Amino acid sequence: MKRIHNKDDIVQVGLDLVLSRGFNATGVEAILKQANVPKGSFYNFFSSKEEFALAIIDKFVADRVEVLYPIYRDVSLPPLERVKKSFETLIATFAGADCSKGCLIGNLGQEMADQFENVRQRLEKSLQEWTRALSELLFQAQKEKTIPPDLNTDMLAENLISSFQGALLRSKVKKSPEPLNNFIHLYFDVFLGQREEI
Amino acid sequence: MKRIHNKDDIVQVGLDLVLSRGFNATGVEAILKQANVPKGSFYNFFSSKEEFALAIIDKFVADRVEVLYPIYRDVSLPPLERVKKSFETLIATFAGADCSKGCLIGNLGQEMADQFENVRQRLEKSLQEWTRALSELLFQAQKEKTIPPDLNTDMLAENLISSFQGALLRSKVKKSPEPLNNFIHLYFDVFLGQREEI
Repeated sequence: MKRIHNKDDIVQVGLDLVLSRGFNATGVEAILKQANVPKGSFYNFFSSKEEFALAIIDKFVADRVEVLYPIYRDVSLPPLERVKKSFETLIATFAGADCSKGCLIGNLGQEMADQFENVRQRLEKSLQEWTRALSELLFQAQKEKTIPPDLNTDMLAENLISSFQGALLRSKVKKSPEPLNNFIHLYFDVFLGQREEI
Repeated sequence: MKRIHNKDDIVQVGLDLVLSRGFNATGVEAILKQANVPKGSFYNFFSSKEEFALAIIDKFVADRVEVLYPIYRDVSLPPLERVKKSFETLIATFAGADCSKGCLIGNLGQEMADQFENVRQRLEKSLQEWTRALSELLFQAQKEKTIPPDLNTDMLAENLISSFQGALLRSKVKKSPEPLNNFIHLYFDVFLGQREEI
């Protein structure tokens, strides 16, 4: 039987459990049991459950960056197509997991932002970095006249991400990817897309 | 000292606590203590914590209906303005509470939809009713040519609600109503608003 007992393994196992059950419903004991780690080791690695939350956020963000940044940098596609493809890629992962779990950033924002200021700040930072990456692409799309010149691309990038998070939540309750697919259709074919014809 | 001990009071106190702390982080004991109810009474009123969740959802939805439906029925405003005003009213309440708490429907969707099928179904039902109410107004707006004829109003209504929920979550993490104000601006002035000029 494989014994898992380093910090990275606890973070990986903990991330999966928190994505499935939520933060407050995931006890330290369940994480240690699943990771096959002796009781007591948790606090060798993390001074508190809050510090553990910061570690799983960093892991989640690092995994996301690995998936999304190659799409953002794919110069074979026009900038707005890269934005669209990046969301479609996240949606495919979510739909493949029976529309459960969702996005750790959204989940912890909902559950922890009011109670744990350090966690709120870490989530805020990661959302700002995501916004900045999308805003750069939207700014390029604006220079290429794919989206209207009067749109504030920082505002639009933040709104795209928040509407995606909202559609993810709606899909989680509906147990169907339909709201996410409609998000793609409305933003990229209707709200932004038809502008090209104006 | 006032003694509170009926079911409605437990629901009201429990709703406030769950909005502040989340469902899993709110213990039955904390609710009873806050409601000034003897230990043990909880299970006289609710067979389980899940049944209690259903009761606070119903209370939250009833309170929302009382606020929103008079706006939906206000014939002194054009239909699309009523939709906009209904969201602005919710935003003012949220901003007035320091951008904390948020929407119970969104919060419980995030925290409970994967684990409690009865709760998921109740949330789904309330979101469908909300969608239906907005879709009727959007359909009227379409007849009056305020929004484009090719938009599916059911889809747009669902997307408006989910994007609002996403903006609410973004505001909760940012501790600023800015993402919600930008949601109003983008949807009503840009995505839908500029269509009037076409």
